Amino acid sequence: MKETGTAVETELPQQSPGEDHAPPLIRAAVAGARGYAGRELITWLRRHPHVRLTRLLSSGQKETEAVPLDNAHPGLRAVRGPRESELPASIEPLGAVELSSDEADIVFLATPHEASARLVPSLLARGLRVVDLSGAFRLKDLADYPRWYGFDHPAAPPVVEEAVYGLPELHRAAIARARLVSNPGCYATAAILALAPLVAEGWVEESAGIVCDAKSGASGAGRAPSEKLHFAEVNENCRAYGLFNHRHVPEILQALNLPEGDFTFTPHLVPVNRGILATVYTRLAPSVSRGAGTVTLGEVVKLFRDFYAASPLVRVADPGRLPEIQWVAYTPYSDLGFALDARTRRLIIVSALDNLVKGAAGQAIQNMNLMFGLGEQTGLV
Amino acid sequence: MKETGTAVETELPQQSPGEDHAPPLIRAAVAGARGYAGRELITWLRRHPHVRLTRLLSSGQKETEAVPLDNAHPGLRAVRGPRESELPASIEPLGAVELSSDEADIVFLATPHEASARLVPSLLARGLRVVDLSGAFRLKDLADYPRWYGFDHPAAPPVVEEAVYGLPELHRAAIARARLVSNPGCYATAAILALAPLVAEGWVEESAGIVCDAKSGASGAGRAPSEKLHFAEVNENCRAYGLFNHRHVPEILQALNLPEGDFTFTPHLVPVNRGILATVYTRLAPSVSRGAGTVTLGEVVKLFRDFYAASPLVRVADPGRLPEIQWVAYTPYSDLGFALDARTRRLIIVSALDNLVKGAAGQAIQNMNLMFGLGEQTGLV
Amino acid sequence: MKETGTAVETELPQQSPGEDHAPPLIRAAVAGARGYAGRELITWLRRHPHVRLTRLLSSGQKETEAVPLDNAHPGLRAVRGPRESELPASIEPLGAVELSSDEADIVFLATPHEASARLVPSLLARGLRVVDLSGAFRLKDLADYPRWYGFDHPAAPPVVEEAVYGLPELHRAAIARARLVSNPGCYATAAILALAPLVAEGWVEESAGIVCDAKSGASGAGRAPSEKLHFAEVNENCRAYGLFNHRHVPEILQALNLPEGDFTFTPHLVPVNRGILATVYTRLAPSVSRGAGTVTLGEVVKLFRDFYAASPLVRVADPGRLPEIQWVAYTPYSDLGFALDARTRRLIIVSALDNLVKGAAGQAIQNMNLMFGLGEQTGLV
Amino acid sequence: MKETGTAVETELPQQSPGEDHAPPLIRAAVAGARGYAGRELITWLRRHPHVRLTRLLSSGQKETEAVPLDNAHPGLRAVRGPRESELPASIEPLGAVELSSDEADIVFLATPHEASARLVPSLLARGLRVVDLSGAFRLKDLADYPRWYGFDHPAAPPVVEEAVYGLPELHRAAIARARLVSNPGCYATAAILALAPLVAEGWVEESAGIVCDAKSGASGAGRAPSEKLHFAEVNENCRAYGLFNHRHVPEILQALNLPEGDFTFTPHLVPVNRGILATVYTRLAPSVSRGAGTVTLGEVVKLFRDFYAASPLVRVADPGRLPEIQWVAYTPYSDLGFALDARTRRLIIVSALDNLVKGAAGQAIQNMNLMFGLGEQTGLV
Repeated sequence: MKETGTAVETELPQQSPGEDHAPPLIRAAVAGARGYAGRELITWLRRHPHVRLTRLLSSGQKETEAVPLDNAHPGLRAVRGPRESELPASIEPLGAVELSSDEADIVFLATPHEASARLVPSLLARGLRVVDLSGAFRLKDLADYPRWYGFDHPAAPPVVEEAVYGLPELHRAAIARARLVSNPGCYATAAILALAPLVAEGWVEESAGIVCDAKSGASGAGRAPSEKLHFAEVNENCRAYGLFNHRHVPEILQALNLPEGDFTFTPHLVPVNRGILATVYTRLAPSVSRGAGTVTLGEVVKLFRDFYAASPLVRVADPGRLPEIQWVAYTPYSDLGFALDARTRRLIIVSALDNLVKGAAGQAIQNMNLMFGLGEQTGLV
Repeated sequence: MKETGTAVETELPQQSPGEDHAPPLIRAAVAGARGYAGRELITWLRRHPHVRLTRLLSSGQKETEAVPLDNAHPGLRAVRGPRESELPASIEPLGAVELSSDEADIVFLATPHEASARLVPSLLARGLRVVDLSGAFRLKDLADYPRWYGFDHPAAPPVVEEAVYGLPELHRAAIARARLVSNPGCYATAAILALAPLVAEGWVEESAGIVCDAKSGASGAGRAPSEKLHFAEVNENCRAYGLFNHRHVPEILQALNLPEGDFTFTPHLVPVNRGILATVYTRLAPSVSRGAGTVTLGEVVKLFRDFYAASPLVRVADPGRLPEIQWVAYTPYSDLGFALDARTRRLIIVSALDNLVKGAAGQAIQNMNLMFGLGEQTGLV
Repeated sequence: MKETGTAVETELPQQSPGEDHAPPLIRAAVAGARGYAGRELITWLRRHPHVRLTRLLSSGQKETEAVPLDNAHPGLRAVRGPRESELPASIEPLGAVELSSDEADIVFLATPHEASARLVPSLLARGLRVVDLSGAFRLKDLADYPRWYGFDHPAAPPVVEEAVYGLPELHRAAIARARLVSNPGCYATAAILALAPLVAEGWVEESAGIVCDAKSGASGAGRAPSEKLHFAEVNENCRAYGLFNHRHVPEILQALNLPEGDFTFTPHLVPVNRGILATVYTRLAPSVSRGAGTVTLGEVVKLFRDFYAASPLVRVADPGRLPEIQWVAYTPYSDLGFALDARTRRLIIVSALDNLVKGAAGQAIQNMNLMFGLGEQTGLV
Repeated sequence: MKETGTAVETELPQQSPGEDHAPPLIRAAVAGARGYAGRELITWLRRHPHVRLTRLLSSGQKETEAVPLDNAHPGLRAVRGPRESELPASIEPLGAVELSSDEADIVFLATPHEASARLVPSLLARGLRVVDLSGAFRLKDLADYPRWYGFDHPAAPPVVEEAVYGLPELHRAAIARARLVSNPGCYATAAILALAPLVAEGWVEESAGIVCDAKSGASGAGRAPSEKLHFAEVNENCRAYGLFNHRHVPEILQALNLPEGDFTFTPHLVPVNRGILATVYTRLAPSVSRGAGTVTLGEVVKLFRDFYAASPLVRVADPGRLPEIQWVAYTPYSDLGFALDARTRRLIIVSALDNLVKGAAGQAIQNMNLMFGLGEQTGLV
């Protein structure tokens, strides 16, 4: 990654020709439509100016019959609207539907990891493009799946090889050419965006250890009931989980090319519905702060603003300001802010995003936009 | 009830002789110890000066082995304390234990309605006293169970007959003599305490309709996971449920001797862990506000203070002040306050309690205190 | 109102000619831009396809200097977007700015009641159209202001006379012709929409009393700090307030033509950021349920669907389903659902809306749309 | 501290002689009684078996008249109880009262830092013992006050010298002899208890850096209204604050004898009323994991259990279990748990406590117990 850092900004795909030409609508299907990521996909896609939702599917085994959309997500019902009437009226069982390119140009998979791993090859074979929101195609080494995901990956290595890691701020050009985009994890997006400029420029003393302490809202854990996510167990509580073994660690290491020993990640559940705040602790490399002058907060801000100059969905806060979850909730943005103790070279990056938008559905749509030649923020801002 | 209203205050059982004599400890067992009401029972009973907890049981079918108490309720672990070492170390499966009077004087049942209905007769037969926190013995007419609880009651009519409705403020003397006390529902306690003085004195124009709009925290719905109680479904939400068919309605009607048509009750789920706020809308009887003077707020307060003069766990707010959930959370109190529009004779009563304390465990212990000749607030204030 | 009920649906203004003609942008100013309603106005207006925000103002006395928008509302910062660059960069002190029709076609006032009362006449005189979100022009009888709002209204009666009560579902045509629209209160919107069809058709036995018990999120109380709105005082709490004297009562009575004695309204504060759930208790008129057949839930639903057939922002739930705050949060919709106890003729209406959208900013924009000949849902769905 | 680590357990003061002898009640006054810490002190002190609350005072300048206790803290009203009648009925203005040893044996100061700094010398001079919950006597070097607290400390150095840092787990014997105890900060308590055993035994590689990322409920910020603590600003939010400059840092460094450069502390505000969860990131010293065997999680647990063997209010979780805020909320306990990545020697300590109990009022009472020869957990468990 370090070698590609400077190239990032020049890889911009061609922007959308604008709304004047009324390009044909992208036909999109959503699988996993009953969960929170699925709901968020529908929410944004249905008001996207260049998308028509054609199929909604759910992978839950129990569902042998279609569920009216209004039952699954009562808040999504629209009385009327330009294309509301075209919204699918129900969520169909995934097993009963054979999606083809006759009815969709792209499929968003908000399905469980193993389900995605099984579904993707056949979807690609049928000529569909795919953005997979699960972790099934995030890791390049198939041998990592048993350890981190608990299953042997069923897909052929070339399919995994082909998958592009869908972090537009780092892989814009490759995403634009991809058939299969693997949407990053919510925590991974927060951590990678916080560290990529520093790592790319060699500003961080990696061997001193990097700590990422993340706080997430409960929607990140999905909609399936469990005692751990029971209201009275989450409310008025805060808990750490997944210490030293969270699934997003390997994709963060892979994206930043970091050795496992240098990076510690601890997620926490906080009692909010949505949003992640990641506090990332680093030590600047001695070389960065040599001589008379040490790096200033202003220089850190400049580094990040330069790095993300072509990234419309990353906002870098002014010196002295730190992002909060409310800055980003219900928005597609990823916000970054900094605190620096120059004397000891300790730099703290605070990274905030909405786990369901920039951490899931929004980023998936950002990827879709790139795949179809649209401006990446189309339908999101 | 109207005829017994004035007698209530004189029915006080003899108070505890005080702590000087160090009476023998009451040996108590708790069945249903894994749920929230069970946890609350343990919390209060273990610091009760006259109780020793001897057995903890759970009725969950899946549990074939004892669960360490520390796993079920990590917060309950005490490092040390006068009688902490005597706390049972684990929660045993109910089916595997045959409780006898050799090991317990009283059993608290925080078990499902049907489980309680089956358990109580045999517990009584073995010489144990019982406080049942389920609804299994609240209704006097067995024919009401299919409609309101969805099962045919298996107990013999005399057992149901024998059960005393455990609202100490109304039935103090009978509770003191009881073998079996049926602990009121949390909503029912809030509603009945708000209305009992008015109904007893004939101040309310019942035919004008009484509306009780109640707001409850999520612990009232129990600990079993479900989508309805999933954190992100309750947080930042408020919903009405059980309209015209909530189980606490018949016990409220029975306690107040009200016809069903005159009383409307709607519970709502609000995103707090514990507490109920019930707003009760009534119209005063014309006879109460005849002549030159109409009833004043001060007279309403006086009516309630007189009625509850012997009730240490009912607090009547000063005129102009209205109880809030935070006034009562984590306390054994039931708080009452009032607003009066004298011109239109509309009186609103605001009733607050903690659904797990005065609405469940605290009231159960209050009942136990009366059953064993202790001051009813012992171990609670 | 009863006599106009059936006319409502035919009063529809002409719809917008569509987006084809690219009508000139409506230039809008927002006064009171620092508060929650102001923020919500900016949020929706900046993505409205036919609006350009030209001025942001704040009425806070302390503010002698402009506040960067990014400081007041960090989450509103957009990195880029079609017209983002035109967003005012700061919020200016209201006192220092003399708005004229050279820079705005319409002013949204999210200012305190008294400030609005003073500002409106001069704004109208300068040729601006106004949507006032305060209560300053909601009541037709100026004599009501001292009682309900605590001040003597400074405006001339003709201005108050001219103001149109901005509930589009009832006054669509008049709004379309108005210079001054008085945006309804959030609670009032929820209550009136729940009752208007019933009152219009004479289905409700008003003399039996109507109770509206409403639960609101904290943003409805504004952004000014106070102990009552301190986090730890609202969280894990629920409280009733404004009993028999809430300011929204007179506008509800006025809109529905109800006598004060027949309507009881009690608002409650629940620990959510946004949303109102109003539970409205009525008794159906005997005439409605005469003869062999009583009114059915389906007939109630049909009544409401017919009444709101031309109202794109009112959603009537299917029988058996009741709106929740999450159905409407962050949306411009008002949702209605019903429970009926046919035997006793008791009908409960559950009415939900987002107090900042349909209860404030969204409705204000809906009104603006009508005033400028656009489809009322433009920029909202 | 390292040298005293092993001595800690032997310094236990003599236990209370038990309740048999009915020792004279300790007469206690609380200054700062209107805030959350003050309320918590009253809550616990009024049910403490050996305490009588004699005076309640408030330092707020505006208060020229006594405030009824019931107004300041409606939930604290008790209908009756053994010594309830002795509870002061109101909170008096601090400036108007000259406390003397005739009416109190001990004063708890929950007053602002500067107020405490001014009050303590005269209280000591009048023969009162003091537990100060502010930061005014936590730092030994008076020169630190301008930097960390923003004021020049007015007290004479000997008074500051005399103050004992009131962390009973480390300074039990000195507290037992103290006239003036300086109650630790809430965050400081969580951090120091998490690190003391490791530092004392030299297990931590301090130069590798220690990161303490803490999450706190809003009551820790006090009861004074501010926009930052407004409900809708805290709810559904999470924010970091005080980076590199929080006041609790110097007392942590002082207590653990750590150089500033080795310790990074970042507090966060999470939307809960009470509780702190601190996640502490360390690297074990190479010497600890030498040879064939590395340190195991079990050995870490044993280290902590040994260190806190005499500390009844510290609970060390079993391997594999991590404390949560709900484990400790409303309790006097401090809970500790661990995760270890033996290969990289990274040890994470999770430390939880209730900021108002072990982090404030509970610890203050624990200190009082020691000062008066009672078992330290008396009245708390």
